[in-house]
Amino acid sequence: METYDLIIIGGGPGGITAAIYGLRSRMKLVMVEKAGIGGQIALSDIIENYPGFPSLSGMELMGKFEEHAKANGLEVKYGTVKSIKKENDLFSIALGEETLSAKSVIIATGAEPSKLGVPGETEFIGKGVSTCATCDGPFYRGKEVAVVGGGDTAVKESIYLSKLASKVHIIHRRDQFRAEKVLQERLGEKKNIEYHFFSRLTEVKGDKSGVTGVEIESVKDGAKKELKLDGVFMFVGIIPSTSFVECEKDAAGFIKTDENMMTSQKGLFAIGDCRITPLRQVATAVGDGAIAAMKAEEYVSEMEGRLYAGKK
Amino acid sequence: METYDLIIIGGGPGGITAAIYGLRSRMKLVMVEKAGIGGQIALSDIIENYPGFPSLSGMELMGKFEEHAKANGLEVKYGTVKSIKKENDLFSIALGEETLSAKSVIIATGAEPSKLGVPGETEFIGKGVSTCATCDGPFYRGKEVAVVGGGDTAVKESIYLSKLASKVHIIHRRDQFRAEKVLQERLGEKKNIEYHFFSRLTEVKGDKSGVTGVEIESVKDGAKKELKLDGVFMFVGIIPSTSFVECEKDAAGFIKTDENMMTSQKGLFAIGDCRITPLRQVATAVGDGAIAAMKAEEYVSEMEGRLYAGKK
Repeated sequence: METYDLIIIGGGPGGITAAIYGLRSRMKLVMVEKAGIGGQIALSDIIENYPGFPSLSGMELMGKFEEHAKANGLEVKYGTVKSIKKENDLFSIALGEETLSAKSVIIATGAEPSKLGVPGETEFIGKGVSTCATCDGPFYRGKEVAVVGGGDTAVKESIYLSKLASKVHIIHRRDQFRAEKVLQERLGEKKNIEYHFFSRLTEVKGDKSGVTGVEIESVKDGAKKELKLDGVFMFVGIIPSTSFVECEKDAAGFIKTDENMMTSQKGLFAIGDCRITPLRQVATAVGDGAIAAMKAEEYVSEMEGRLYAGKK
Repeated sequence: METYDLIIIGGGPGGITAAIYGLRSRMKLVMVEKAGIGGQIALSDIIENYPGFPSLSGMELMGKFEEHAKANGLEVKYGTVKSIKKENDLFSIALGEETLSAKSVIIATGAEPSKLGVPGETEFIGKGVSTCATCDGPFYRGKEVAVVGGGDTAVKESIYLSKLASKVHIIHRRDQFRAEKVLQERLGEKKNIEYHFFSRLTEVKGDKSGVTGVEIESVKDGAKKELKLDGVFMFVGIIPSTSFVECEKDAAGFIKTDENMMTSQKGLFAIGDCRITPLRQVATAVGDGAIAAMKAEEYVSEMEGRLYAGKK
């Protein structure tokens, strides 16, 4: 079995950056990705805060990232990682039928939308319940939809949906949004938005045709109300995809790293959305990825006793 | 006197990113820059590891960054900051004749090339001694030059200079380079390079016409040797531009921050090359800038008692 210097698990902006840096450092590396290169951000309608690109879609930006990494010789294996085990300084990664071996590993698996845990939410996934406006928005042209949440994603996706749907109901537990102010202003300009503040979603209702409405409840007095609509978009937070990783994490599963992106397990690094970090953006994932790759290279070089002069 | 929410000192990649994020958060902000937007990286001949742009010059990349920030409404004031004082939660920044007032400040002043401290080094600056191959390389077309150093910059600039100069002498204290391997390989392909390993520069020699040669010494046996040449490029490390800042720093002057980029002084942030960080790259400066701007926005909002719901 061949042994890689580095295996990068996850092909979002952080993982791709780590690949570019690792390949330029002439590490023998492979990226493992479960679906398509780009990660969650590839589903984003518009990105305006990755420096150098004033405005483009997540798909377009990730296309450029992928092209950049491929020009440096990136190899990708598709599949889901079941487990990572470390024995005698080598990591064994179970990928479908295959087992990969590596001296260092970078976890760049990102995070997925969380669930509210209310009746109908799971039952109607793909039949009116969605966590991706870019993916499913076009199905609701001229129809009425609800958005649950108040962060950046909820506000961005509401703006996007307001261009397609006849009406967007925003259901938010508070009366203010946490989103960037420029986004809040843009939202404010939309005429077909109805705000349901201090409200929480308690049930997704539907029949064989799919979602037909939702029940919401006031967080102040518990009063219930029903809204008739055709789709519900949930943007209520994220859960890191880290269950297969054994190392120190917080209660929600986000991985703890030091400033070199190394986890509590030597040689195992974590970057981007899946780690404990003050901000989750393409810009920060990219910084994390550069650091992790260079530190993995140092780690592997030291492990091999090939110490370069001057390295600490 | 008007009070800014945020003043960003320094217009390199980190500062520009902070500006993009700050402006999109609708902060009233201004950037202060002593020379031209772009910072040290704008002097770089070629950048191939900022994700999304496989290969371009530092000047081109920083042009795109500047355009991006200006599209978001960036205002720049030119001048050198003399001091930063904090009184009653407000920072006073002395800029030439003017004094600016701000609720938060981001230091993004980067770092400048250090000096060896050998005879002739200062005397012949601009007359054969240089710290920027992109700036001064073209003056040495068909001439013989030396490069001092062994890191990324030294190797990159040697490759660049080898295309212009008839011969490039590399003077390095060790026998291995710390540069990216892809760069070392490219250097190895060049035919007009002479390596002086285990050697240090002890004197820059010259006359009224400028540099005429250098004296080098073996770090092993102290043997001295003279090389006849027309120019010397020094790439022997960096010094942060932080002398005007009062906060916790290391012995070399690099600023200590927490993971939110905040310094030991509340409301004062530091990002990029001027802070203590495991890696100094455009990719990492960009990540730092995004975090600092968002944390400055939180800090200012909290200071103003305008707490958004849900913020910690």
